[in-house]
Amino acid sequence: MTTNEKALQLHEEWKGKISTESKASLKSREDLALAYTPGVAEPCKVIAKDPEAAYTYTIKQNTVAVVSDGSAVLGLGNIGAKAAMPVMEGKSVLFKEFGGVNAFPICLDTQDTEEIIKTVVNIAPAFGGINLEDISAPRCFEIENRLKELLDIPVFHDDQHGTAIVVLSGIINALKITGKKKEECRIVISGAGAAGIAIAKLLLSYGFKSIIMCGSKGIISKDNPRINWAQREMLEVTNLENRQGTLADALVGADIFIGVSAPGIVTAEMVKSMNPDPIIFAMANPVPEIMPDVAKAAGARIIGTGRSDFPNQINNVVAFPGIFKGALEGRASQITEEMKLAAALALANLVPDDELNEEYIMPEAFDPRVAEAVSKAVKDHIR
Amino acid sequence: MTTNEKALQLHEEWKGKISTESKASLKSREDLALAYTPGVAEPCKVIAKDPEAAYTYTIKQNTVAVVSDGSAVLGLGNIGAKAAMPVMEGKSVLFKEFGGVNAFPICLDTQDTEEIIKTVVNIAPAFGGINLEDISAPRCFEIENRLKELLDIPVFHDDQHGTAIVVLSGIINALKITGKKKEECRIVISGAGAAGIAIAKLLLSYGFKSIIMCGSKGIISKDNPRINWAQREMLEVTNLENRQGTLADALVGADIFIGVSAPGIVTAEMVKSMNPDPIIFAMANPVPEIMPDVAKAAGARIIGTGRSDFPNQINNVVAFPGIFKGALEGRASQITEEMKLAAALALANLVPDDELNEEYIMPEAFDPRVAEAVSKAVKDHIR
Repeated sequence: MTTNEKALQLHEEWKGKISTESKASLKSREDLALAYTPGVAEPCKVIAKDPEAAYTYTIKQNTVAVVSDGSAVLGLGNIGAKAAMPVMEGKSVLFKEFGGVNAFPICLDTQDTEEIIKTVVNIAPAFGGINLEDISAPRCFEIENRLKELLDIPVFHDDQHGTAIVVLSGIINALKITGKKKEECRIVISGAGAAGIAIAKLLLSYGFKSIIMCGSKGIISKDNPRINWAQREMLEVTNLENRQGTLADALVGADIFIGVSAPGIVTAEMVKSMNPDPIIFAMANPVPEIMPDVAKAAGARIIGTGRSDFPNQINNVVAFPGIFKGALEGRASQITEEMKLAAALALANLVPDDELNEEYIMPEAFDPRVAEAVSKAVKDHIR
Repeated sequence: MTTNEKALQLHEEWKGKISTESKASLKSREDLALAYTPGVAEPCKVIAKDPEAAYTYTIKQNTVAVVSDGSAVLGLGNIGAKAAMPVMEGKSVLFKEFGGVNAFPICLDTQDTEEIIKTVVNIAPAFGGINLEDISAPRCFEIENRLKELLDIPVFHDDQHGTAIVVLSGIINALKITGKKKEECRIVISGAGAAGIAIAKLLLSYGFKSIIMCGSKGIISKDNPRINWAQREMLEVTNLENRQGTLADALVGADIFIGVSAPGIVTAEMVKSMNPDPIIFAMANPVPEIMPDVAKAAGARIIGTGRSDFPNQINNVVAFPGIFKGALEGRASQITEEMKLAAALALANLVPDDELNEEYIMPEAFDPRVAEAVSKAVKDHIR
């Protein structure tokens, strides 16, 4: 049986990958009087007087909504709310298993930006945080920004920031190995959607200076009339020389390639045209922008992918559970740029200097220190 | 320590009364590949082609949303979404513990009818049913009716229908004891909100003929200008003689009193004015419309209350878990009148004829046969 066949069969057996369980024992009338009426009126009354008490008496203190409109699910595209459910249930499982955070999938039967915003605001009281997931760009930017303004709980679009954090952590360690300096590195990002833009922003925050972004039609530049508002905004801080051309043109003399785009679009020749010791993060899934063996043969020094069957898997799962664990425990009202940078550094530092090498730049998803380290980094940077 | 103090302390210790738990084991990379990427894409693709497959592969098959806007919570009134959370978490606990149904609290930060409807429609993909809770009348009627039209999953306002089902089941058994006939009984319902109106409707469906409803200003009649549209609608099937006056006037010559109203409003004199062997369901909580000992002394034959410390507790908890269990298992698209009547009969029949007496007309909440019997009755009546 293939993995896919087995996955389908298991999903049928699971009958949904998460369950809701009672923490309150209900064996007697007295139990009922404490967990439900009349006793339940007490915490209700306290919260009615002081809404902050919701964090003391309800699931708000440790529960996240995993919200998607099903518009950009995995590599599957716009498959809608119901079909997105297995992914959002899976994400909820990861929140619990890796971060100890309760999470519930909310798949929205609308792809209208305003309706999504209103709906999430309306359901927010039960939740201590909102994890946005698999919402297509550029709508995802507006939805996240508006929700951040409207809500007093952390709102985090994982496709953007989770990806950016793990990429930065991998790059930090790759610099240690190659001796490249962030101020001098030339970076090319292929993929100018949610992930690509967020990666560019976080790398700039960390101190990188030179980034060129490429879309499916080549370099994102001021003279390209087909770019969206979010890509246009990025031109104020990327491609400052206003270069034009193809991805191949962009890669000439580059130090770092970061791909969140499409399979097989990077050739051995392109890698050869890069500066010495090139760093290649080819994260298209399941087929990377360039296969590791091809990149290696072409001179790539460090290669990361999104896959678990190659070294250096760049996987969000090392970030988001710890991010929300820390934000919830520290009762952060936002996930700030400082927290994201701190999380990336914490992840990078989990690989000890004496073990760091070309094939080991990222901590393992199953390393129990991961969520703890990320969570601590986040908590330490709550203002 | 009082029950209330203990309840508050326990709510703090529980840190939320429900948790979300993974059904999928995540111990290895292979586990991750089956529950999450890449394996998770398989059920997604199947559902994208056939939305009905969501019932096979996701939590939709056994998960209910417990939805409230916090506008009419217990006896506490309009305390808002956050303060309503402990009740909705408690309800979710009851769904799981008594019915084996997963349930998640959705407390809405809006009390606008249209926004509530839109929000519930938008979040419906994850859920197999919607349990509306503690939404004030008459908005609750419109919200429920519209949602029933818009959604293809069961929508059930428990304050209405759960209450109506348990009241009818108790009345069915009370008739057996008193020998009263449903066609001849005169019924007075005190409380013309969500519960009172739903009780009247279900009693009429069952075959009762004569019902008078009373509000806080006395009998609901055509000449009362202050009644709302829902109460006016009820006048087409209740109070056909167009009687007017007070609750005391209504009770003269009545057989059954059903109170879902306010503490202490029924006096011994009123009970004495009723027909022989009066049946009194005084369900105001925590203080009934008349205390059982007072009613008994005044000649009441059968007395039920909402309280667990008196005989004959009339408690929704014997109904809603089984109702949704049956509806989900049988994949009902609606909870119909037939299902509600069948559920009430099933509940009544759980009290064996040879044990039935004035102080034992309702099955126990902790009787494990309850959810099973109700669920079966519901399933047997899915069209």
